[in-house]
Amino acid sequence: MPRRTEELRELVEAYLAELAFTPELRPLEEAMRDALGGKRVRPVLCLATGEAVGADVGTLLPAAAAVELVHSFSLVHDDLPALDDDAERRGQPSVWAAHGEATAILAGDALFGEAVRLALTYPTPEVARELVRATLHMIGGQQLDLQGGVDLRQLHALKTGALFGASIMCGLWAAGVPAAGHGPWRSFAAQVGLLFQVVDDILDGDGYVPAIGEEGARQLAADTADRARARLAEVDADTDVLRSIVDDLAVRTA
Amino acid sequence: MPRRTEELRELVEAYLAELAFTPELRPLEEAMRDALGGKRVRPVLCLATGEAVGADVGTLLPAAAAVELVHSFSLVHDDLPALDDDAERRGQPSVWAAHGEATAILAGDALFGEAVRLALTYPTPEVARELVRATLHMIGGQQLDLQGGVDLRQLHALKTGALFGASIMCGLWAAGVPAAGHGPWRSFAAQVGLLFQVVDDILDGDGYVPAIGEEGARQLAADTADRARARLAEVDADTDVLRSIVDDLAVRTA
Repeated sequence: MPRRTEELRELVEAYLAELAFTPELRPLEEAMRDALGGKRVRPVLCLATGEAVGADVGTLLPAAAAVELVHSFSLVHDDLPALDDDAERRGQPSVWAAHGEATAILAGDALFGEAVRLALTYPTPEVARELVRATLHMIGGQQLDLQGGVDLRQLHALKTGALFGASIMCGLWAAGVPAAGHGPWRSFAAQVGLLFQVVDDILDGDGYVPAIGEEGARQLAADTADRARARLAEVDADTDVLRSIVDDLAVRTA
Repeated sequence: MPRRTEELRELVEAYLAELAFTPELRPLEEAMRDALGGKRVRPVLCLATGEAVGADVGTLLPAAAAVELVHSFSLVHDDLPALDDDAERRGQPSVWAAHGEATAILAGDALFGEAVRLALTYPTPEVARELVRATLHMIGGQQLDLQGGVDLRQLHALKTGALFGASIMCGLWAAGVPAAGHGPWRSFAAQVGLLFQVVDDILDGDGYVPAIGEEGARQLAADTADRARARLAEVDADTDVLRSIVDDLAVRTA
């Protein structure tokens, strides 16, 4: 029997494949679709959170896709020659390498806009507010990175942790959980964001690794995963799938 | 006594000068502020619309600023070397020329995000939905422009008319006017968008000018201004200031 996380990933893939963009973006569609590869870690986390509190996955998919589109937007702009100058992404030509710089800039803009459009399909503005807040932190982090001379931990919290945490919070808002019930979830989101970031640093050998050593970073990842599980134990929800995601994030190798 | 449009412009200037960006955008603040020059035509239109239906200007300013920030975002990205390659804007170095391409890309992203954040300060999502819809049309139009071979009228409707029309519609939503009362306003917004666009083409000698001749374009501008005034006459509102804005748009020389 496939695990629920795998089923959720397939639901995200199917939703993104069928997703109709704003018709006026037709000339950017190919570049936008090329940008949408990836492991879907963030949208799966969003869906698993909303399911944990009892929401139907169908009502959660627009929020999950919105988070993924923001992630894709950030990669498209980060890969540009003026920024990281990456001509490849996931073994394929990056969007600018395949479609030109101008189209990549506009396709990134369009992915950000479509993300917000999806987040705005909910009756209240909270999903969009949460998403935009995290996106602004991410953009600020990217500029800090350009400028250099900043603590890499602080930097990765903005560049990586913010959107990761927002995946969880957007799942809650999309599920209709009011702010009063968010306390332990926000702590959980912070721990999961940090966990993803520390394991990223271990895999890349930067950030926490030069700061506290590889052994220290591994210990921090283990402790952070424990704290994430402890926060999960505090919420009144069916958290089995989320717990398995935390377990996977702690031992991932890619 | 200063005319009301001039007072509204001053209110926009003061609001933008005091506007606190998301603190995490601090490293982009200088570039973002440099991008905010301009004549404030769109935000003044937004404020005048909201005032015409009885709203207090204070409740309208976030929406007005949001429209202006989207306009600024679009100019920052359009000026980039990969797009229009304009090193100057309003007699000053453009954002990329002053701050570098990478910072200009990120400052544009941040301006778009801050625009949406402001639009999301309202209790309901409609201001943000209207703004994002127009922004996506504008981005699609910019890509059409890159590809070439498109009718310039259709192109300018996307690149210019969409956001212009949204200035009016965002003013209505911010004022709390429900969709049922939008009919004649949406027609008015379409006419004002077209008017701005045709006069732009006359000033630049492109778009409608090669298509229907300068005399034809001037006639179209006059007819469009008449239609805009006729639509205004149909709405139940105090439309004197809006009428004077239409008069100004019809005869502007810059």
